[in-house]
Formats: sequence, C-alpha cells, structure tokens
Amino acid sequence: MLSVAAAVDAAVGSGVVRASRTERAAWLEALAATLEAHRDELVALAASETQLSEARLTGEVTRTAFQLRFFAGVILEGSYLEATIDEPDLSLIPPRPELRRMLRPLGPVAVYAASNFPFAFSVLGNDTASALAAGCPVVVKAHPGHPQLSRRVAELATAALAEAGAPAGTFALVEGMDAGIALVQHPGIRAAGFTGSEAGGRALFDLACARLAPIPFYGELGSLNPVVLTTAAVAARGGEIAAGLVGSFTRDGGQYCTKPGLVFAPASSNFVAQVAEAYPAAVAQRLLTAGMTANFARIAGELAAHPAVELVGAPGDGEASEPSQPVVVAVAAEAVLADPELFLRECFGPLTLIVRYRDEAQLHQVLGCIEGSLTGTVHCEPGEDVTGLTAVLVEIAGRVLFNGWPTGVAIAWGQQHGGPWPATTAAIHSSVGATAIRRWLTPISYQEAPASVLPAELLDANPHGIPRRVNGVLIV
Amino acid sequence: MLSVAAAVDAAVGSGVVRASRTERAAWLEALAATLEAHRDELVALAASETQLSEARLTGEVTRTAFQLRFFAGVILEGSYLEATIDEPDLSLIPPRPELRRMLRPLGPVAVYAASNFPFAFSVLGNDTASALAAGCPVVVKAHPGHPQLSRRVAELATAALAEAGAPAGTFALVEGMDAGIALVQHPGIRAAGFTGSEAGGRALFDLACARLAPIPFYGELGSLNPVVLTTAAVAARGGEIAAGLVGSFTRDGGQYCTKPGLVFAPASSNFVAQVAEAYPAAVAQRLLTAGMTANFARIAGELAAHPAVELVGAPGDGEASEPSQPVVVAVAAEAVLADPELFLRECFGPLTLIVRYRDEAQLHQVLGCIEGSLTGTVHCEPGEDVTGLTAVLVEIAGRVLFNGWPTGVAIAWGQQHGGPWPATTAAIHSSVGATAIRRWLTPISYQEAPASVLPAELLDANPHGIPRRVNGVLIV
Repeated sequence: MLSVAAAVDAAVGSGVVRASRTERAAWLEALAATLEAHRDELVALAASETQLSEARLTGEVTRTAFQLRFFAGVILEGSYLEATIDEPDLSLIPPRPELRRMLRPLGPVAVYAASNFPFAFSVLGNDTASALAAGCPVVVKAHPGHPQLSRRVAELATAALAEAGAPAGTFALVEGMDAGIALVQHPGIRAAGFTGSEAGGRALFDLACARLAPIPFYGELGSLNPVVLTTAAVAARGGEIAAGLVGSFTRDGGQYCTKPGLVFAPASSNFVAQVAEAYPAAVAQRLLTAGMTANFARIAGELAAHPAVELVGAPGDGEASEPSQPVVVAVAAEAVLADPELFLRECFGPLTLIVRYRDEAQLHQVLGCIEGSLTGTVHCEPGEDVTGLTAVLVEIAGRVLFNGWPTGVAIAWGQQHGGPWPATTAAIHSSVGATAIRRWLTPISYQEAPASVLPAELLDANPHGIPRRVNGVLIV
Repeated sequence: MLSVAAAVDAAVGSGVVRASRTERAAWLEALAATLEAHRDELVALAASETQLSEARLTGEVTRTAFQLRFFAGVILEGSYLEATIDEPDLSLIPPRPELRRMLRPLGPVAVYAASNFPFAFSVLGNDTASALAAGCPVVVKAHPGHPQLSRRVAELATAALAEAGAPAGTFALVEGMDAGIALVQHPGIRAAGFTGSEAGGRALFDLACARLAPIPFYGELGSLNPVVLTTAAVAARGGEIAAGLVGSFTRDGGQYCTKPGLVFAPASSNFVAQVAEAYPAAVAQRLLTAGMTANFARIAGELAAHPAVELVGAPGDGEASEPSQPVVVAVAAEAVLADPELFLRECFGPLTLIVRYRDEAQLHQVLGCIEGSLTGTVHCEPGEDVTGLTAVLVEIAGRVLFNGWPTGVAIAWGQQHGGPWPATTAAIHSSVGATAIRRWLTPISYQEAPASVLPAELLDANPHGIPRRVNGVLIV
C-alpha cells in the first residue's frame, strides 16, 4: 500500500499545478469515461460493500461522471479564474501600477471520502473532481466502508489519467485511520476536503488548524435539515406532503446528509395522522455499516422512550430491526424546548422527528435552537407571506427550498451545499456545484510583469477568450 | 468603555445584514467624508501617537477615504454577489430544480487594528470598510499604539453612521488585550480580520479554530518580501536599484508589511558597494513603539555580530540609535543556508539583508527555504528569461512584481494582499482590493422559491441590473 509520504511527495513533484485547463479537462473526461466503461463491474462491487441498491448505484455512477464533465466545462469557460487586469493610474493615492490577477491552484489536496455516496462523494467524487479541475493533485483517503471499490476505482483512475497524459503523482489513494491523520498533517498538503461525521471531521479540522502552517479544511459534518409546514400547506395537501416526507427521509436508508430529520407541523393540523397513513410505504433497508445500524437503533430507542414522544411509524414493537425499519416520531414543541440536546441532533438513517408547533412564535423559538444545516425547507401555499420564515432559515442553512424535499443535490452553477457549523466547517464555500472549485484556488497578482511570464489568461490579447474584468469592468 | 458582550450583542441585533447595497454605500461615503472633514485634527492626533510624519499620515487619510468609497463602488457594481440563476432541467441526473444563488453577509465581524497604518489598517481601514460593504456589522479591537486616535475615529464613525441612517450596533470599538481575546471567542462573531504580529495573530487564530463553532480568521502576520536582482539588471542600473532599495526599506521607518527585507544580489556584482553609496540618503526615524525599537535593535545586533555579515550601512558604531537609524547588512548565500533561522526572519523596522548568490542554483536553494510572503520582486532587463524565477516566486508570494518596489499597496480590483503562511493565515483571500469583501460573505441558494422571498438581485427582471450568471452563462 502507498505510504502517505510517498503519495504526497509524488503529488508535490507532479507538476500538475502547471497543467493547462484543456489538459485538465481532458483528464476529467477520461475519468468520466472510465467510470462509465466499467459501470457494471463497479456497481456490483459497490452493492456488495454498501447494501445500497444497484439502481441507486447505477444512477450515482451517472451523477459522478456528469460531475467530472461538469467541472471540465467550468474550467474551460474560465470565469472561475477571476482574471482581472488593472491598467496603471498614477493619479490615485496610492498610485496604481499595472496589476493582473487570477486564481491559481493551491497545491496538493487531501480528500477524505464519505461512506454514503461510494461514487459521488468518494474516490472520484465532488472533492476530487473539483480539485483536479482546479489544477491540484489529489491524495484520497479511502473510506473503510467500501475498500475494494475504492481500490478498483483508484486503479482505473490511475490508468485513465496516465493514458490521458496526466503526470505521475496526479492522483493517489491511501487507506487507514493512521494514514488519514498523517495526510492532513503532511507539510506538502495545502488543503483538505472531508465528508463524514462531526466527530471525525472535527478531529481532522483541529489537526489542520494546529499545523505549523495551517491549511484550509473544508468539512461537511452534520445536518438536521429542518422542514417547516405552514397551516395552509397541510390543509391544502397534507397527504401529499406526508407521502413526500416518507419518500425523502427513507430514501436509500435515510443515509443522506440532506435527509429531512426535523419536520415542523402545526399542532392544530392532522399531519401526524397523515404521516401515519403514508408510513406503510416506507421500506426497510440495511444501513451502510454495523456502527450506523447500532447508532440508529440507539437514537430511535432513546426518542421512543421519552414520555412525550408519540410513535407515528415504527417497527411493530418499537425496537430495532435488521434491515433497519424507518422510524417516525412526533413530539410537541414544548418538549423539544425542554430537552433540545435529545431532540435536536442528527440521526444518520431513516428517522425523522415531527415537531408540533402551536404558533409562529413557538416555531421561531425552536428554530432559534437549531445548529447550522445544509438545507431548510418550507412547504407553503401560493400567496402566503413566508418572508420572515425564509429570513430565519437563510441564517441557518445554505440552501432554502420550497415545496420540495432536500434530498437530491443537483450539480449546478447555482448550487450551494454547505451551511453554518456543523453543516460545514467553513460556511463560505460549497462542496457541490461549480463554485466548489474555489476551495482549491489562491490568488496571484502580477505587477508590471513582462508578457513572457504571464499566464495566457492574463495576456492583453485574451487568447483563450475568457471572461475578465478590465479596469473594473466585467467583460464577457 | 463598551464591553465585548454589549458590542457584539448590539451588532447581532443591529439588522445590518438586511441593509441594502445602496444604504451601505451611503454609510461608506459618510465615513469617508467624516475622515476628510476632520483630517487635520486626526492627523495631528495620529502624529502625536505614532511618530509617523504628517505628510505620510495626510496621504493615509486620503487612502483610507478612497478605500471606503472604493468598496461603495464595488457593492454598487454588484458582481461581487456572484448572482446565479439556473432554470430547471429535469433531464439531468440528478434532475436540476430552479436554483438562485448569491452571497450574503456572514454576520458580525471582529477587526483587529494594526499599529503601522493608524488609518488605513485600523479603525476604519480595509477590514472594516470591506466588512461594512459586505453588510456585516463590525466590532473593532483598537490597537494600543494609538488609543486616542482610535477613540476619536470611532466617535466620528459612530456619529457619521447614525446620521447616514445606519442602525445602532453597526459599528463599535473595544479596547484591551482581554477584550481582544473575548471578542474572537464570542459566539455572535462570525469572522475575524487581523493585521499584526505572527505571535499575536497565531494566538487569535488558534482561539478562532478552537471555538465550539469555529469561524474564519483572516490574519496578515509577517512577510520577508524577497527581491531578486539579476546580473543584467545590476549591470545596467545597479545604482538606481540601490537608491530605490534604500528608499523602499526605510520608507516610514521600514514599518511596512511589504518592506523588502531580503535582497538577492549576484555575488559577482558590485551591488553591495552601490547600496553603501546610496545609504547616506537613509533617514533615521522613531519607530511606532518602544517594543519595536528594542526588537529592531536586537535583531540588527544579532545580525551584525555574525562573523560572516558585512555591515553595509549602519549607525557609526553599529549600535542601536534613537531615532532608529536604518541598517543594511550583507552576507553570502552559504551563510544563510547554514543558519536560515537567523537570517530568514522578518525584522519590523528599517533593516534589509542583502544575500550574495553565486549562481541561479544557489539562488533557488535559498528561495526554497523562505516561508510565505506577501510579495516577491524581480529586477531584470528586457528580454531576460525570468519565467523559472517567476514560477518560484508565485509559489512563495501573493503578488509578484517587476522592476519596482513592494511597498505601496494599491487599492484595486486586481490587487492581491496575502500569501502563504505566515504572510496570511488563509492564502485564499486578499485583505486589500475589491476581493477583500469575499472574506465576509457566505453563499445562499434558493430552490424553487416564490419571488416574494427573493432578494431583488435574484429576481428574473434583474431590477438592479447587476452582472449575473444565467444557466451557466455570465451576462453583464
């Protein structure tokens, strides 16, 4: 197995940071193509290691290939470079020399793969795709939940990259907890991306900050994803919303970072009964690991044992099942406010908590106790005034959505997958979508530089025709 | 004196994050105007507390007012919002809903003022200006080097903001080391900006990272600012370069974060003799504080005591003087490589070290030992191939400049004031220039949102006419 030192040294020496955008775009295309070419083999391997369905995994390969190609498009378009040219203006105080600025790759990036998306947030997932697109070599720490798949994808990636002309050291896989700890501390690593648990992410974040030269650590850790139902919405289509909720929180075993884990329903409504009616559609599923299965059962048991909790949908005897049967519990807002630590925590797996709120004031009181989330959802009716509610959710979540479900994260220019701690360690960037590339870039300004040392993107002639800002004016 | 808790609570409750861009632009204009209206009084106060010349301080007020207005222009232009609209595309995997994304203010920002720019990097300096522009209320921790000036500027700022309609809590000043420590740890603070020493910045950075919910800490700590002279440049205009160096490293007592502290000259050249000739133009100056004066004398003494060091220009007896007399020392690259910790460290004040390099290999060897810097400078002749040298400096520094001097940091769209650790804690952002605003912003995506909850900047009609990206295409 490759050592961390060997992997990082090869990354440092790879010269990837000097590769052109067209070269990197070709690498990304090659990686997408190799995933597709080996789809059946990879899906079978993934299914055997993760318990996820073949249909879901097949779609995830498509998503992952799309994501790789999406980032190829992002770098070819070129505006992500923020290329900027200021002509000299000696009349200013202080005088302005000629300045040409753009973003350049930070250097070798450590990627910590997640368990719940063995393709899309793993070896060739969003962090790796965006880092390679940025021009950073990548060392992936494999998730122990799918070791064989990780190794096979790494093998295919290494071959595809070599064939596409990427230098040795562009990509490597390391394994094991010790390797993960050594990786974030290695002086050659310049940034890290992580998707996983709050405990694991925090430990690595702390190591990244404690370095002699600290590095940015972009971790996506945990999220409750509150959903708020207005009285009008439940009155108009409570049954439909209940069915949508059951579909969303149980999707792929509820093992999504965007799973709706907390649903606010008007106490005066019959939403809880509507969910009970929809519950039989919920499908039991084996969870990713034994640890998750046990943790899910433990939290479900703790909630069910609380005297104020109503079991809305649960295995017959309210006990743990294998495969894990989805669990819906309901409780009054008063009980949540009395014990927020019990109720307002993430439970990975198919569990959701319905909070019955008496009025808007009480709703806002509970929302004020919630930590940062990736998403916040509103179900409302046309014409309802939800501006106040939206303003509260905007403070809590990176993506606020309406009359839909937070599971399913589109790969788009306008996506935001991040949120206040602990949703992400640094809420200022996204880990999905075009802007995820910004995490791996650092600015450089050239002052009065001879054309011979400038990147093509900053030459007067703009030979690549990218969008640029010239003397403060954006030109596309 | 205002307590940290009172200041932050007022900031949290201020509602500044909901102010419009035009409102904030008016606040920035009002702050610029009040500085100008009280210029004479403020300059006199600053001169009495800092030892800096009235001419320099007068220019700094102009710079600071320009900077406030510059950020007003940046927010009115609007592209800093990164407004993005994606229309739905259900043919994608996963399907893409309608997404509308932009940046919004993070929330209350802590600003740690610097001593060496009592206006431009202090109470109403770059961090405060960019944070208010972003829509974040600001709590400034005053630098103890100019307490009366800080209080007077804060008083004027508070009055100007109130008159311009800014809500209470938009701005506050706190004082003292304990307040500084409490400020970065206060849960209501969402980000911090710092300009100062490596020791102080690191201590605050560590506190920011150790919080229950960590926050981004943007610190500008220390910088050597290497300058490389080619053989051809010294041959063609060594005398001129020597005079420029003496002017730059002694400017305002050498108390610039961009002071050229390390100059690489070909061992075969007579550059050291040329600097000795230019040295008599160097002017002694009192430094900002007694601590800096003592530290400067100590480092100068340690260097002068080294057997390999040549005193090129120094007070008659090579000892400390008051006011501080500039010091130039020279040493062969071999000696630097033998004791990098002695030679490759920042000395705040008018001191520069000339390193005589034998050949390019040796030059690169020493450059390989340098930590991150804000700037890297090349003096070369037309037609010389300096691409290799530039590539090395780009890895070390955030701004690489040619045939000039790094002191003097223009306020521009294309500026980059930052660099690898310890130049800045996070090399991915600038603290000067238009992009400095990005440090105080966080993304929000609205999915399938009713128009009634959307910011004007994301409405279909684009009522403010800002640059936006629609379905991946940048439209200005």
